[in-house]
Amino acid sequence: MAATFTCGRSELLGVSLKVDNSSHALHSGATRLHCTTSATENVKLFAQHTFYKGKSALSIHPGRPTFKNREGAFVLEKEGTMFLEFAPSTGPRQYDWTQKQVLALSVVEMGSLVALTMSDSIEFFHDPNLGSSDAGKVRKSLKVEPMNDRSGFFFNFNMTNKYNNVEMHLTVPVTKGEFAVMRSSFNFMIPYLMGWHAYVNPSAIQSGANNRVDSDLEWSK
Amino acid sequence: MAATFTCGRSELLGVSLKVDNSSHALHSGATRLHCTTSATENVKLFAQHTFYKGKSALSIHPGRPTFKNREGAFVLEKEGTMFLEFAPSTGPRQYDWTQKQVLALSVVEMGSLVALTMSDSIEFFHDPNLGSSDAGKVRKSLKVEPMNDRSGFFFNFNMTNKYNNVEMHLTVPVTKGEFAVMRSSFNFMIPYLMGWHAYVNPSAIQSGANNRVDSDLEWSK
Amino acid sequence: MAATFTCGRSELLGVSLKVDNSSHALHSGATRLHCTTSATENVKLFAQHTFYKGKSALSIHPGRPTFKNREGAFVLEKEGTMFLEFAPSTGPRQYDWTQKQVLALSVVEMGSLVALTMSDSIEFFHDPNLGSSDAGKVRKSLKVEPMNDRSGFFFNFNMTNKYNNVEMHLTVPVTKGEFAVMRSSFNFMIPYLMGWHAYVNPSAIQSGANNRVDSDLEWSK
Amino acid sequence: MAATFTCGRSELLGVSLKVDNSSHALHSGATRLHCTTSATENVKLFAQHTFYKGKSALSIHPGRPTFKNREGAFVLEKEGTMFLEFAPSTGPRQYDWTQKQVLALSVVEMGSLVALTMSDSIEFFHDPNLGSSDAGKVRKSLKVEPMNDRSGFFFNFNMTNKYNNVEMHLTVPVTKGEFAVMRSSFNFMIPYLMGWHAYVNPSAIQSGANNRVDSDLEWSK
Repeated sequence: MAATFTCGRSELLGVSLKVDNSSHALHSGATRLHCTTSATENVKLFAQHTFYKGKSALSIHPGRPTFKNREGAFVLEKEGTMFLEFAPSTGPRQYDWTQKQVLALSVVEMGSLVALTMSDSIEFFHDPNLGSSDAGKVRKSLKVEPMNDRSGFFFNFNMTNKYNNVEMHLTVPVTKGEFAVMRSSFNFMIPYLMGWHAYVNPSAIQSGANNRVDSDLEWSK
Repeated sequence: MAATFTCGRSELLGVSLKVDNSSHALHSGATRLHCTTSATENVKLFAQHTFYKGKSALSIHPGRPTFKNREGAFVLEKEGTMFLEFAPSTGPRQYDWTQKQVLALSVVEMGSLVALTMSDSIEFFHDPNLGSSDAGKVRKSLKVEPMNDRSGFFFNFNMTNKYNNVEMHLTVPVTKGEFAVMRSSFNFMIPYLMGWHAYVNPSAIQSGANNRVDSDLEWSK
Repeated sequence: MAATFTCGRSELLGVSLKVDNSSHALHSGATRLHCTTSATENVKLFAQHTFYKGKSALSIHPGRPTFKNREGAFVLEKEGTMFLEFAPSTGPRQYDWTQKQVLALSVVEMGSLVALTMSDSIEFFHDPNLGSSDAGKVRKSLKVEPMNDRSGFFFNFNMTNKYNNVEMHLTVPVTKGEFAVMRSSFNFMIPYLMGWHAYVNPSAIQSGANNRVDSDLEWSK
Repeated sequence: MAATFTCGRSELLGVSLKVDNSSHALHSGATRLHCTTSATENVKLFAQHTFYKGKSALSIHPGRPTFKNREGAFVLEKEGTMFLEFAPSTGPRQYDWTQKQVLALSVVEMGSLVALTMSDSIEFFHDPNLGSSDAGKVRKSLKVEPMNDRSGFFFNFNMTNKYNNVEMHLTVPVTKGEFAVMRSSFNFMIPYLMGWHAYVNPSAIQSGANNRVDSDLEWSK
């Protein structure tokens, strides 16, 4: 007979324990407890931080790194990303998230933002068709530049889709304090998205199964 | 029969394990362990850091973010805040905490403080009646400005209550070293108060039940 | 009958689980697992980082904060400190740690070091008799000042004991890279020594019993 | 009889629980659970971050600190290191990792990189035979210097082996954003590689057995 243990901290971590006590008989029972990392391993978590502005809103949240188990070792499969979601305003304090545009920043792009000073600007270009004959058909870009009065940064998002001739331009003014929140949280997240948190706390390893959704999110629209 | 397990790390996390071993019979027992997150989930923790000064004291401590469980997913319900408590001095090394004034800084206000340099100053305004006809009746403000000799910052707290014509002014001089402690600890806390620590360590998720008190603390007097 | 469980993570955390299964009888056994935080709660850990120099050595390691349990709540009893131990050299790559001098930096003193730039210097004074008639009889001071060539900082330690007319002067040259290690590790430790890590990870709370030694270490010689 | 439990979080931490229930007899069974930290304690983890460039690639990953258990106390045996692996390019987007050269940065060398600004450069020298008559026979060096246009740093790696007259020179251009990733991740790792993470989270302690490989990796070729 076999019993399944799912317990304490383990439930949150989605690690289920299986008990194989087939030989659990009176006076001679030996119980063996072992664990498996199952498809339920990832806790679904929604913790966006949103900057609401006059004409648009910017929401940020991380997408987890994924590991695969190869012969007993955990191997980083895919680094995590930082999702930036831009939505237009449709009225006072109202935003249309059905029109949202997603940009998934890599760890290095996050580093560029963390290192950004008031005397610099930076631009990222994303193209899902890069390297194919359709390169340039769909493009997303983000330009981050300091405000003239140095009170913060403008986040200028652009999307061009030549398939359906749609364009989208959104500018989000980000104050110094808001940018400091990005810097703090991005700085905190970079080692985690690289999978390095697992060196410090091995139990934080997540299997890749449930994260496939995340990784395709930028281009899934 | 059923047994309840509350163990080790789990107790601190307030996660109780329940054992349902109704079929635990001799020779054929199968044991099932599962956990529930209960209302006892939050550890009550008091860890203020207080800066004691000649005419006043400033005490800081974080208020936790809260999550709700929605169909198996954890959703950030409310970001945490940083509580600043100001108390007047009543004599040498004596402070009257019954007169304390509380200001709950948002994550972005914390970011503004973290980003503050010796060539800047910053001011926050809090009004519990904002947007209602009573707006302006009660106001709290905090102005943080560098000292002339650049050896630190002045934290100027003001409260005006037009209902009972009470005013309160307190200035706390904060040295560079003390400000560095704020910067370190605020920087450490920002991702946590945003709920992002839960991406790294899902077991850190706290249910919202017991934190209601915290969130109303600034205006509960 | 009763059994004691001490397991996995719990052992490291020094949390022992006790099993009270007095009613554990055949076919009707109910098992109850609960935990106690005992005096064995603290893991003894030695992880100094030492800077070995020509004429002296400087070793650093943190002393944990302590909490007490008051009616179910954990209350910070004493913030942790950072121990700086200075030892004179007695020959090439040889240091006499029996002569070591200890300075326990407070969280704010650590903040002052973290915030220190190449255009500043800072000095700390410690006196165990401060406020008593013996004030000034024993004094320790640490002056940290930039090197002329800006390649690092000098850590000048002084101790004067007027009881036995002993004086001690030690200077440790700390390179930029070494100072960056201090800054990184102090910055990491500050929230922990304030007890704030426990907000993020409640299981990290340590009871105060075993730490008494630590807190008296600076003056125990 | 005895049973072995390896469970949940514990498996990841490689902590195995052993159950000694030799007296587990009907009606009188007392079960004792205790843990041992065994040679399986370390989770094998591979989470390199690689910067791919035109003529070469640079891959970084940490090597864990090791502790030994001395009379119940955990004592840091060896600080961790940061491995930098340099590989030459053999064609567009192709790199020959069989020719890779490894440099293991100490915590202080990591600090030097974290503290590096655009107006500085820094050089590290490693010699496995230092202090012996063969000193200088094999040398590795890394010089990190800012690009002229201040858009990043050059990582110049050199290896000279006088035994077989082999030399190797590789230059990796590292952008500001990439350098910020190094700074974030090195800064995060420094306290951990010093073993200080264990003060905060004692369960993160790793026994030294399996890490011997890591520590010899730089010179194992």
